[in-house]
Amino acid sequence: MNHTEWLRQHFPVISKSLGFILTPREEIEERHKRLRKKMEAVGIEALLVVQKMDYFYLSGTAQDALLFVPLLGKPLLMVKREMERARAETPLEHVVGLKSLHDLPSLLAEHAGRLPRVLGLEMDILPVRDYLRLQSTFPNSQLVDSSGIIRDVRKIKSPFEVGLMRKAGDIAKRVYQEAGKILREGMTEIEFGGFLEATAKTLGHEGLLRVRSFNYEAYSWHVLSGSTGGIVSQSDSPMGGLGLSPAFPVGASRKAMKAREPILVDFGICYHGYQADETRMFSIGKMPQKFVDAYKACREIHDAVLADTRPGADCEGLFVRTVELARALGYEDSYLGPPGLQTKFIAHGIGLELGEPPFLAQGQSYPLEEGMTFAVEPKIVFPGEGSVGLENTVVVTQEGCEILTPLDMEIVEV
Amino acid sequence: MNHTEWLRQHFPVISKSLGFILTPREEIEERHKRLRKKMEAVGIEALLVVQKMDYFYLSGTAQDALLFVPLLGKPLLMVKREMERARAETPLEHVVGLKSLHDLPSLLAEHAGRLPRVLGLEMDILPVRDYLRLQSTFPNSQLVDSSGIIRDVRKIKSPFEVGLMRKAGDIAKRVYQEAGKILREGMTEIEFGGFLEATAKTLGHEGLLRVRSFNYEAYSWHVLSGSTGGIVSQSDSPMGGLGLSPAFPVGASRKAMKAREPILVDFGICYHGYQADETRMFSIGKMPQKFVDAYKACREIHDAVLADTRPGADCEGLFVRTVELARALGYEDSYLGPPGLQTKFIAHGIGLELGEPPFLAQGQSYPLEEGMTFAVEPKIVFPGEGSVGLENTVVVTQEGCEILTPLDMEIVEV
Repeated sequence: MNHTEWLRQHFPVISKSLGFILTPREEIEERHKRLRKKMEAVGIEALLVVQKMDYFYLSGTAQDALLFVPLLGKPLLMVKREMERARAETPLEHVVGLKSLHDLPSLLAEHAGRLPRVLGLEMDILPVRDYLRLQSTFPNSQLVDSSGIIRDVRKIKSPFEVGLMRKAGDIAKRVYQEAGKILREGMTEIEFGGFLEATAKTLGHEGLLRVRSFNYEAYSWHVLSGSTGGIVSQSDSPMGGLGLSPAFPVGASRKAMKAREPILVDFGICYHGYQADETRMFSIGKMPQKFVDAYKACREIHDAVLADTRPGADCEGLFVRTVELARALGYEDSYLGPPGLQTKFIAHGIGLELGEPPFLAQGQSYPLEEGMTFAVEPKIVFPGEGSVGLENTVVVTQEGCEILTPLDMEIVEV
Repeated sequence: MNHTEWLRQHFPVISKSLGFILTPREEIEERHKRLRKKMEAVGIEALLVVQKMDYFYLSGTAQDALLFVPLLGKPLLMVKREMERARAETPLEHVVGLKSLHDLPSLLAEHAGRLPRVLGLEMDILPVRDYLRLQSTFPNSQLVDSSGIIRDVRKIKSPFEVGLMRKAGDIAKRVYQEAGKILREGMTEIEFGGFLEATAKTLGHEGLLRVRSFNYEAYSWHVLSGSTGGIVSQSDSPMGGLGLSPAFPVGASRKAMKAREPILVDFGICYHGYQADETRMFSIGKMPQKFVDAYKACREIHDAVLADTRPGADCEGLFVRTVELARALGYEDSYLGPPGLQTKFIAHGIGLELGEPPFLAQGQSYPLEEGMTFAVEPKIVFPGEGSVGLENTVVVTQEGCEILTPLDMEIVEV
């Protein structure tokens, strides 16, 4: 049978029956409206959107494609692979095939009447080699960095997006409930992490977490127990753990989990591209009082951040206050990492990528806005002994915030 | 306790007891020797190695770092995070901390006596924004693209590297043995894929597969059954499957697997950074004869490629002969994808990344060399019905090749 014909007939029914949610047309239109306002403000005449999550956000499809967004006129989705599926997923009207980059100027000129004088590209992530190729493809266009404005539009989540993140939080809740049932002494961290991931996937977790970086890799199986919880590694995180090898030196290791040590499970879930991030503590038998106390301090810091979370609150101010609170609680030297290795943020924005704006962090002085989503994660680290932490993903509401990962916050003791 | 002190005392013992293999000094030295030969040939005076797998290959650590490699003199590893761990993993002598990119010129000048006039960067993956920053950091250096020569060195694997890939193949063998035991009717593709991944992780699989791309994502759970096997999606693969949502539109879906349909399991394993890739077929009860026959053709094509694999064989020639063989066998319209969507490669190089050289593909006319490793994957796709395929990872030897994924090649019928 012909692939296109088959897809046209069956894809809508099959994908719907298997839980696919398409991005509604009005949702996409609203995103473009907000984007155009920013384009106009900075004087960018057109964007060539190259990064997958950026064009997924603006088109509803993650098929291999490029998206042309002119300030005036309709967007044009140019699909490399696979055309019929992109058509089924995007509500955009103008969708054409793209065989080679050489065809780009003629496609754009035909669509828009002429080539843009100023063309925005996501230079925070586009590789140099592709950039140089685009320079010679558009010799008369000024290429400018548009990653900032796209990230700016993306940082305010719509009710549709928050709904998907809430669903990711629901999956997290069920995963953590299962976790308490299967944790047992002698199980390795990675065995536990692998089980949690398998459970999450069965519930809709997409396996990959996304970060906007050419080197930084996100992963779900961040399970640290006792001494591995005290190890700082490559990631910009209070503790990275031991990992499985020098090539993957973060997250769960092959260490067997023991009774009475703190077991930290920081597990990201991705549902329809939208992520929820949360951390909870487990122990087999009771963990030493030192960790119970430190966890109590994490909860206090967590609650203090959320109590101050509302539109207008200053992101840097929220971070600085947690440092002061940690000091007052007696954790100056262990809050967010060991001395000299402490991270400088208490929360990172989250959505289609981990590490979106806003950052509740040093040097990030700007106000929270309604619809922003972030993961707040106070953690306390004792090298050689272990670490504790709590993390929830929240959305800023008109009056305050809503927790999207409403799991019980007590230490799970099995 | 102090993090550095604790790590210095305990990391070597703990990491070794949990299976960490460090890259030997002679191995790193040999790699640098081969790299310097290529640098000299193209006239690059120094490299600033920025990409994680590139500097892991040349230093033995994947901690967050930059690696300076001068043609004359010793390499300098500059570590952002975490210093003590990098020191424990790398056999390189010169290791310093790097707090800010601003310090780079003074660090390099101090180490090498002066700044290089020509500095190589991996421009195939380095983002434009970082490149522009480096341009202003090194205003008097000519920045050139060095990704080609690093990839060129990496494409020939040492016995140490082949040993790690063989171990990845061993893990694959055990995972596929488990697969046959748990597959049952009604299980969803993603449930099966998640179980296989959990099993693989317990045996040392690192969870993430790596591809050198800012948009292309690799993943282990490529389980396709019946009709989902006939779906082409964004990936440069004969069939991508349905996936879990428009945001992750490839690989296993929530479709329940049924009796008598072809179930294709294409599952990558990563051990100490080194990958093995293999595909086998499963069915619950007997699959229709059409698929059994097509699988037989895949085996014939697979065997033909391996029979011709030896140093000196032309990569494009190997590919072209498989197209001719597929036509002779009656699969012209289904070999490597449906008409119009057929991929143009029969094998991709593999190692620290999927999609390294060599490519047994259209337009890739160069000879195989001893020590090259690739995954050969003949696949046959019937839209609306399903697909079959076979894949093994091999290393080119002096006389021919060795299969690194020595799993049984019969269809596993449960």
